[in-house]
Amino acid sequence: MFSLSPIETTTMFEPTPPPSSPPPSTLKDEVDIVIPTIRNVDFLEKWRAFFEPYHLIIVQDGDPSKVIKVPQGFNYELYNRNDINRILGSKASCISIKDSACRCFGFLVSKKKYIFTIEDDCFVAKDPSGKDINALEQHIKNLVTPSTPYFFNTLYDPYREGADFVRGYPFSLREGVPTAVSHGLWLNIADYDAPTHLVKPLDRNKRYVDAVMTIPKGALFPMSGMNLAFNRELIGPAMYFGLMGDSQPAGRYASMWAGWCVKVISDHLGLGVKTGVPYIWHSKASNAFLNLKRELKGIFWQEELIPFFQSVSLSKECDTAQKCYIELSKQVRDKLGKVDDYFNKLSDAMVTWIQCWDELNPPSPQSQSQSRVLSLSLPLHDDDAAIILSNGSA
Amino acid sequence: MFSLSPIETTTMFEPTPPPSSPPPSTLKDEVDIVIPTIRNVDFLEKWRAFFEPYHLIIVQDGDPSKVIKVPQGFNYELYNRNDINRILGSKASCISIKDSACRCFGFLVSKKKYIFTIEDDCFVAKDPSGKDINALEQHIKNLVTPSTPYFFNTLYDPYREGADFVRGYPFSLREGVPTAVSHGLWLNIADYDAPTHLVKPLDRNKRYVDAVMTIPKGALFPMSGMNLAFNRELIGPAMYFGLMGDSQPAGRYASMWAGWCVKVISDHLGLGVKTGVPYIWHSKASNAFLNLKRELKGIFWQEELIPFFQSVSLSKECDTAQKCYIELSKQVRDKLGKVDDYFNKLSDAMVTWIQCWDELNPPSPQSQSQSRVLSLSLPLHDDDAAIILSNGSA
Repeated sequence: MFSLSPIETTTMFEPTPPPSSPPPSTLKDEVDIVIPTIRNVDFLEKWRAFFEPYHLIIVQDGDPSKVIKVPQGFNYELYNRNDINRILGSKASCISIKDSACRCFGFLVSKKKYIFTIEDDCFVAKDPSGKDINALEQHIKNLVTPSTPYFFNTLYDPYREGADFVRGYPFSLREGVPTAVSHGLWLNIADYDAPTHLVKPLDRNKRYVDAVMTIPKGALFPMSGMNLAFNRELIGPAMYFGLMGDSQPAGRYASMWAGWCVKVISDHLGLGVKTGVPYIWHSKASNAFLNLKRELKGIFWQEELIPFFQSVSLSKECDTAQKCYIELSKQVRDKLGKVDDYFNKLSDAMVTWIQCWDELNPPSPQSQSQSRVLSLSLPLHDDDAAIILSNGSA
Repeated sequence: MFSLSPIETTTMFEPTPPPSSPPPSTLKDEVDIVIPTIRNVDFLEKWRAFFEPYHLIIVQDGDPSKVIKVPQGFNYELYNRNDINRILGSKASCISIKDSACRCFGFLVSKKKYIFTIEDDCFVAKDPSGKDINALEQHIKNLVTPSTPYFFNTLYDPYREGADFVRGYPFSLREGVPTAVSHGLWLNIADYDAPTHLVKPLDRNKRYVDAVMTIPKGALFPMSGMNLAFNRELIGPAMYFGLMGDSQPAGRYASMWAGWCVKVISDHLGLGVKTGVPYIWHSKASNAFLNLKRELKGIFWQEELIPFFQSVSLSKECDTAQKCYIELSKQVRDKLGKVDDYFNKLSDAMVTWIQCWDELNPPSPQSQSQSRVLSLSLPLHDDDAAIILSNGSA
């Protein structure tokens, strides 16, 4: 068992103005906000009205001697590289250095049911009426309502207010499946790769698309970690951001890797992945030339990775995210090891990650009974319920 | 060979005001607008600015002795049941009576590359800025730009102005595939089934979602015929609306049937199906009680049809929409004939439909050279080009 003692933990509650419009369903004791950063997290001031009720897990990247300042009034814990090394010991090698992929350490140490992760150049966006968008509130709505991966609904999320299933949607599929992931989008600076950014330096995303939808079973998508929420109990063990950054040959593919793994595992387990609203305002494009250097190997590798993930098949015995992830790590070694030795190292790191997960998140009677509540409160197939009930006992 | 002589053909061009804002790319010689109706098509007055440059094919349903009035200034041909019987002879049995499914006769007799079909209770919708939406112009944009069925793009249609592919989208997939179908949506009265309509009689679709996207390969969707466009050269033979209405046990599943067939055949041929904008304003909900009666068998049958279509596999030899449709008709008989004898009759009708198609649309050197132009002007895989080049020669 690891010992958990972050360098800094605070529950300061200084008098601050209450949130202007408290969300109807905050689930404030069931959500952690995970933020990877290398600088003072002043951007939180802009999020105060929406984030202050929640607990933050800040993962400090880079030089651990640097002091990261957190605006007063927030409830947070902060981990730097020294903490990661102390808590994970030799297994700390699976957590990336000098890359926002280090955020997944926050997923490991959280004890909450849901995670919202956001980057420090992301601010509150406005909807077309000019109203501030409470991104976290929308993510929670997306996560607590079911997904519909087995049939496409042309009016998008049928569980959203003012929408429904349309004519021709099979009635037997209208109960949906539990939602594992809510992938939010970005106004202003879109999440472009370096070549696109080089070619279209002035492009800005101005289109607010008022929709959220389930990505159909079998379809892969490019997941960004800028504005992302997920059900940690259902899919947390698969939300590993890989080996990126310092001393690694790849960068800028952390969230892509996680997204491809998460999607094939969600498809296998009968869970849903949604994308669409909420939007955040992405303020700052990183340097396109530097990004090209970091992305270079990934640009070539992804052409091999996509056919691999499109053809991944997991065995029936894989009935938890952990078991799926271990089986996937073997397939990564077998099929991608020949692409580059990097994937052998990544396969090892995937196994190490699951070892860390299981040590920091041992199954408990309580977590099993929590899962049982979930399985009773959502309209599930018997098979889905079985998957959820066994999820805490890998 | 059938003889084509519609009861009424007119090319009247009375002085009328020019369209207020002519679309930049009208393709007016390459599009037919197909309208099934049982009444005077006065609704065309509302579409005059957008439809007047185009040729209309009006398929009159019900009593052929009734005279359907068409507003002056439109270029149209009109077919009633007597015309259908005369042109198709004994094969006219494949065209439904007293159901808007009769519209597919218009697809048969058209000689154009693109079809836009719309119903007579559909009017011009307004976008959020209050501007009239030129639905046809948007459909054409959707059809002449590629689709992306092999990987989901989180910023929706990457070919739309102001959008692109996001980070993590494989570069080898960015050329896309030819688009077969553009499925538009509806503001006001949504396309609900009778049970939903009975439960939510006051529901109105008020959400304008400014997106169009490719439905991923392998995913089925509920296609509505209210506001639908397609590339007749690529997918026309699969756009059969089945046996519905008079003397048939089923109704209200015509466009669903066509949509499921079209999707599995598009997936097989490497073609794309888009859904989203443009919206039309759907003014009138049909009677929910009457609809329940008409839908009743379909509600049960669709639970068997969806697993069937989800597992359909077509052989490599099926390299045209016609060949795919004939093979599909055999599988309908083999696998669905046991659900109800109706599907044996439907299987026969599918074969009859293709016979009609081939007789009315014989391959010509001209159509083959047109296909070749398409294959050179769009960024196609070699395999896709081969499919298109052989499309006119089944």
